[in-house]
Amino acid sequence: MPIQSFIPPQRTLMGPGPSDVSPRVLSALARPTVGHLDPTFIGMMDEIKSLLQYAFQTQNTYTLAISAPGSAGMEACFVNLLTPEDTVVVCRNGVFGARMIENVQRIGAKVVVIEGEWGRAVDPQALEDTLKQTPQAKFVAFVHAETSTGALSDAKTLCEIARNHQCLTIVDAVTSLAGVELKVDDWGIDAIYSGSQKCLSCVPGMSPVSFSDQAAALIKNRKSTVQSWFLDQSLVMDYWSGQGKRSYHHTAPVNSLYALHESLVMLQNEGLENSWARHRAQHNKLASGFADLGLEFIVPAQERLPQLNAVHIPQGIDDAKVRQYLLNEYNLEIGAGLGGFSGTAWRIGLMGYAARSENVALCLAALKDALNQ
Amino acid sequence: MPIQSFIPPQRTLMGPGPSDVSPRVLSALARPTVGHLDPTFIGMMDEIKSLLQYAFQTQNTYTLAISAPGSAGMEACFVNLLTPEDTVVVCRNGVFGARMIENVQRIGAKVVVIEGEWGRAVDPQALEDTLKQTPQAKFVAFVHAETSTGALSDAKTLCEIARNHQCLTIVDAVTSLAGVELKVDDWGIDAIYSGSQKCLSCVPGMSPVSFSDQAAALIKNRKSTVQSWFLDQSLVMDYWSGQGKRSYHHTAPVNSLYALHESLVMLQNEGLENSWARHRAQHNKLASGFADLGLEFIVPAQERLPQLNAVHIPQGIDDAKVRQYLLNEYNLEIGAGLGGFSGTAWRIGLMGYAARSENVALCLAALKDALNQ
Repeated sequence: MPIQSFIPPQRTLMGPGPSDVSPRVLSALARPTVGHLDPTFIGMMDEIKSLLQYAFQTQNTYTLAISAPGSAGMEACFVNLLTPEDTVVVCRNGVFGARMIENVQRIGAKVVVIEGEWGRAVDPQALEDTLKQTPQAKFVAFVHAETSTGALSDAKTLCEIARNHQCLTIVDAVTSLAGVELKVDDWGIDAIYSGSQKCLSCVPGMSPVSFSDQAAALIKNRKSTVQSWFLDQSLVMDYWSGQGKRSYHHTAPVNSLYALHESLVMLQNEGLENSWARHRAQHNKLASGFADLGLEFIVPAQERLPQLNAVHIPQGIDDAKVRQYLLNEYNLEIGAGLGGFSGTAWRIGLMGYAARSENVALCLAALKDALNQ
Repeated sequence: MPIQSFIPPQRTLMGPGPSDVSPRVLSALARPTVGHLDPTFIGMMDEIKSLLQYAFQTQNTYTLAISAPGSAGMEACFVNLLTPEDTVVVCRNGVFGARMIENVQRIGAKVVVIEGEWGRAVDPQALEDTLKQTPQAKFVAFVHAETSTGALSDAKTLCEIARNHQCLTIVDAVTSLAGVELKVDDWGIDAIYSGSQKCLSCVPGMSPVSFSDQAAALIKNRKSTVQSWFLDQSLVMDYWSGQGKRSYHHTAPVNSLYALHESLVMLQNEGLENSWARHRAQHNKLASGFADLGLEFIVPAQERLPQLNAVHIPQGIDDAKVRQYLLNEYNLEIGAGLGGFSGTAWRIGLMGYAARSENVALCLAALKDALNQ
């Protein structure tokens, strides 16, 4: 029996991502493929740059989308900026901070780790103290919105501390972009990466990045070759650059970029502040429903991500059974715990197109049913 | 004026890729996104593995799609197999052989280059001679189908020579997969990578790869860490593996994989040998039309790729003007020359869905018109 076409079920995606994708984005995705050097496509790439500058709130020239998932965006930031001689302070309060450390180690650079509590924001005082004792530090790296725990860190303050110690900042905004306040230029972030499949509600597979002029100069002037050819931004930038002739580097994921463009047009039309406010408002509805169900948040209220709600799995409840029931009975996906929270937490995403009243209502009703099974 | 949705023109893609994408594949691409750990999605990934095994003609367990373009597939093969202590013989007869060398150098491994003529197949005798003088060589790397020149190399013979000298082989099959005969197991290829956007006629952005048991063992047992976290196959394999629980590594490009699945189902339904024969038959029609137009092939007949036809731009003809006329008047994209062939060659692709009589007829008629402008 030969293998047949795959027809996926219609799920509602309220896990840690991919998030629910708008039908508008899916429709853009399926538009006819053009060449990756087609003049119309190059015009669209320029628009993506402008739209990403808006989403990141930056004037950085060096703003584009890496042709691979967020973890490749993370790696792109580290391999392009770091050399083995550098010392990097990494704040770890979840899985993605730990992944940053892996990246630094694979470059052979020195890493100083600030251990933070899982489910809490990064402690600015700990950063201040560490930097005082680490005058050789050149970079500070932290996760703005920890997808593994649902904790939001104060990126503005952390960047200020780093700057006071002459450090450049590398910030993971995979889950924060478009979901909570994020101001790359105002806060002085030097390198930032995100993902297409979280609060932008686009399909997974691309990673928006932006580099400050200072970070871009560091990349341009570096003496040693970047260890990754595919992620070498000095080559990638020649393809994305608006100036003169585009040089071929790799074949861009043409259709995925249609989808990213559409999701960013939708963000522009809604307005960034409105998007932040919508995530917050839907989170408040969800939180109120959780209280009725007796579900408790892991993260204290003031450090909580509206778009990723991590809750303790109640005593006596079978994690896998509940998630399977939600999937089978309601076509609803919520997220399992990750890393240290595996088996003890659920992660309920309200990202992008999923941050709507109908999704909150469905999620609360379905959870109520599942918990009573 | 805010940025509007992007509506691409309907092109016919007959360049070096992306190739024309079948409406069936575009339709699969736009199906509703499911979670990357959804049981239905994991079942589909298993089917992709089987379908890729068929396309590559291999039983290799270690067969999957890298979540990034072909150049990331290339890098994945090199960074996972090589260590700085290794010596690699690379055959360079075009842009992509040169890119292999870049990859080896960025790992810090030793590279011995066999220089080949642009537009010609790799010379097996040169490989034999070089390996005799390079007993320390551990790998031989070459491009099966050079997309920059249209030359097809004799992968079977090259692999046999490499094996006789106890070398593992790393083969670029970006443009060859599904377009010409390719038998990974019969020919004893150890590591191979391809692209989604060539003869599979899928959207760009993914890179099918396969590793022999010997190559897989080398990866599994390597002592030093792979320099790329994103491309570390020991981690990626835990996500794609059929055995037991899937471990999260990165978020797979869910919708792009729907499209890859569909393109592979279409290949399975057509039959691999039929696909090879169709590319050959359409190439013969195109070649006959080229003769009528006075267009001359760069590559000698017996070394010619049916799916990528490189021709000399006739004396007195303006390269850019012709390509622009074809694009504007016929919505037809053909490829410019790349690297050493820039400005002197056109590359006309007959890949996958583009290898059809209607495309050949359009291309010949449009070229005739353009050359007479």
